[in-house]
Amino acid sequence: MVNTDECRKARRYAPGHITSIEILCVGTELLMGQIINTNAAFLAGELMKIGIPSYYQTVVGDNKNRLESAIRLCLNRSDTVIMTGGLGPTADDITMEIAAKSVGISLEFHQESADKIRSYFSKLHHKMASSNLKQAMLPKGCIPLVNNSGTAPGAIIETGEGSDEENTITGGKTLILLPGPPNEMQCMFKESVESYLASRAPVKIHSKFIRLFGIGESQAESIIRDLIDNQTNPTIAPYCSEGECMFRISYTQKQEQEQEQEYEYEQASAEPDEQILSNLINTVKERLGEYIYEIGDRNMPHVVFDLLNRAGKTVSFAESCTAGLATSMLAAIPGASAILTGSIVAYNNSVKEKILGVPHSVLSEYGAVSEQVAEAMAAGCRKVIGTDYAVAITGIAGPDGGTGQKPVGAVYVSLAGPRYKRTMELHIAGNRSRIRYVASLHAFDLLRRTIINDCQ
Amino acid sequence: MVNTDECRKARRYAPGHITSIEILCVGTELLMGQIINTNAAFLAGELMKIGIPSYYQTVVGDNKNRLESAIRLCLNRSDTVIMTGGLGPTADDITMEIAAKSVGISLEFHQESADKIRSYFSKLHHKMASSNLKQAMLPKGCIPLVNNSGTAPGAIIETGEGSDEENTITGGKTLILLPGPPNEMQCMFKESVESYLASRAPVKIHSKFIRLFGIGESQAESIIRDLIDNQTNPTIAPYCSEGECMFRISYTQKQEQEQEQEYEYEQASAEPDEQILSNLINTVKERLGEYIYEIGDRNMPHVVFDLLNRAGKTVSFAESCTAGLATSMLAAIPGASAILTGSIVAYNNSVKEKILGVPHSVLSEYGAVSEQVAEAMAAGCRKVIGTDYAVAITGIAGPDGGTGQKPVGAVYVSLAGPRYKRTMELHIAGNRSRIRYVASLHAFDLLRRTIINDCQ
Repeated sequence: MVNTDECRKARRYAPGHITSIEILCVGTELLMGQIINTNAAFLAGELMKIGIPSYYQTVVGDNKNRLESAIRLCLNRSDTVIMTGGLGPTADDITMEIAAKSVGISLEFHQESADKIRSYFSKLHHKMASSNLKQAMLPKGCIPLVNNSGTAPGAIIETGEGSDEENTITGGKTLILLPGPPNEMQCMFKESVESYLASRAPVKIHSKFIRLFGIGESQAESIIRDLIDNQTNPTIAPYCSEGECMFRISYTQKQEQEQEQEYEYEQASAEPDEQILSNLINTVKERLGEYIYEIGDRNMPHVVFDLLNRAGKTVSFAESCTAGLATSMLAAIPGASAILTGSIVAYNNSVKEKILGVPHSVLSEYGAVSEQVAEAMAAGCRKVIGTDYAVAITGIAGPDGGTGQKPVGAVYVSLAGPRYKRTMELHIAGNRSRIRYVASLHAFDLLRRTIINDCQ
Repeated sequence: MVNTDECRKARRYAPGHITSIEILCVGTELLMGQIINTNAAFLAGELMKIGIPSYYQTVVGDNKNRLESAIRLCLNRSDTVIMTGGLGPTADDITMEIAAKSVGISLEFHQESADKIRSYFSKLHHKMASSNLKQAMLPKGCIPLVNNSGTAPGAIIETGEGSDEENTITGGKTLILLPGPPNEMQCMFKESVESYLASRAPVKIHSKFIRLFGIGESQAESIIRDLIDNQTNPTIAPYCSEGECMFRISYTQKQEQEQEQEYEYEQASAEPDEQILSNLINTVKERLGEYIYEIGDRNMPHVVFDLLNRAGKTVSFAESCTAGLATSMLAAIPGASAILTGSIVAYNNSVKEKILGVPHSVLSEYGAVSEQVAEAMAAGCRKVIGTDYAVAITGIAGPDGGTGQKPVGAVYVSLAGPRYKRTMELHIAGNRSRIRYVASLHAFDLLRRTIINDCQ
């Protein structure tokens, strides 16, 4: 959390609403294409949720002149600039120094940050290099941001009501400096920056995701076209996602600014107008309900995990073309061992026969990619691993191996459960990686529908 | 390929070397954090390979004023700007129009592009919307870029020797417009833009990646510190990569510019100075050889796939904590069915006992996460699936479940092969996802070392 005492001491005036913000990421490795800029996407998404629009994202390298001119440019066109990267201990790391210089402030040694860095190293039983103390040099009068997952502290610099030196940025601007490693940046943002920005946002946004599976984006959009076209507040917007389809419903509430009052970090806990959101959600549900698997933030494997957990049931997979991918997606969830007993990857027919007990005659009559083999794989898996549910996936992931009758993308998904067995034939478009991924999603959706049905 | 007739017609002068370039990505979905900007990373990496440095990356939304001012800013500070996104058929897609306007050029109907868009739809048996013809409106005198994986053509606009209208960009600048969807953008770049830029690059870069496993980045760097410090040409630079470590060795060759000659797209096929590169590679090999698994572009599973393929051997996995991830990484490679027979995900001890035949006494004496159980899993997997090699992975992926003696991150990897069995104890740092991933990489590395040894 932001140290509020520190903040109040540092604050020369109560800063106003932030109506525009931009993101400036610093790092030569970004310019060289060595890493993908996930920080910008994370911050942009968080700013959307808070209700402050961001109109620009910029990447520059660790170069003094270009970095300073980028900071000036950003601060000239936006109220606030969030920066990431370049806070490390080496000579290359110049963001703190250049940011302070750009707004005409000098660095000073910050004892608490130095103590925090020292204790970070002593906890890990590592010796601290003296260069790490450079990270405790922070802009005079800034709000220091504690780093609980690394050494580099961050900082919020508010330029006050007006600039007091020549050649510096005008007042009323805010510069937020965060570390570059995504986990450090995300923790610091969530712990200290989110509430700071929310308190200065001109609006408060309440939003929910509606997640659909088994319907294409354009088809789903056409069914709620009138809602999208006639939206004012709340709004409804489609989001892209591989193999599935999402809508985000957002309700925007104006924030009253309390300029005269003591500046408070904690938001007045106004009840969100849940009714307004839920009315629109209900309308979407009436029209698209059969495709909706989640209203919230859980992905498909997580929804299935929770359903199995609640029902106290277990699952196993018999995977051919997906070859461990479906199992691995479920095992990515902490605690998966409570519901996932095991799986058989039956890539070769010998495994389908020997371990899953698919009869040789069925394999040779219908072929490995067939409804009959999928069914036998599921039944065999359920029996040999001994789970409540078993799902089998067999198909042609490509790029080679398709035939006229069974082209690349032809996939069978079959479920064996305590009450039913069900099999689906799919034709999945895309490359090998997409076919395997979407086939796995279908396996989870079949599980989801079956468990819900069984528990009724 | 670029239509060279079209190019020559369009070219008013032979453009010179490009010494600076920047990337400008257009898309409101990027500003909203809905998608991660992989296009910038792809282009930045490709520009590095070509030998043209890029100093800035910018993202703006589909907004006329902000887009125009961003284009002007970029063209003022760099020779060339590569743009992605906003070339679609809808009213939101304004990149082509605004780019042309920014450099004082108007759009005109391009018959060949219109024909190409029409044939794209007729091939798919889809009806073309009339709005798609908007995509055939291209800047006058540009080099049109064919889109072989979508409808939107791209364009290269060269501003000529000087600007001829007021308020426009000065001459000698180049604007390259590519579509936003990554596969369309990448195809168009590779097919038409790469050779165009290479021919205008001031240098030609020959580079190779050295990929290491089993050694930390800082340790590897310290072993070749003198090579890094004393580098001039070729250079050696460390690259980040999850769980492994990479160095890129690059040799820069100056390009002679042939300003007087007819401008040619095809590069004069100068022999790269392979000797200079291989001398440095050999020095690195002498010092770090035991950790190097690849000099080139293959990742670890691909190296193992090729080794197994060449040796005509098969593999299976017995996965506990990785739960299908290792198998899935191998199955991601087209043709994996030739060497991957199948796998057992033995998450629960019942599967370890019942299917892999791990004795109950071994499980209860040593615990599921132990050298003894890993060994028994590998031996059992090799037998029951019937492969030349089998690798078992058992460990604690966390976040819960660790003990003082077996903390989160404790993993055993065991291999059973035709000649040997080997078991490794690992302590992997990081979260659940990293532990599972790095454990899988260790399984592949153990396989790699064993197969190489067996084939000697």
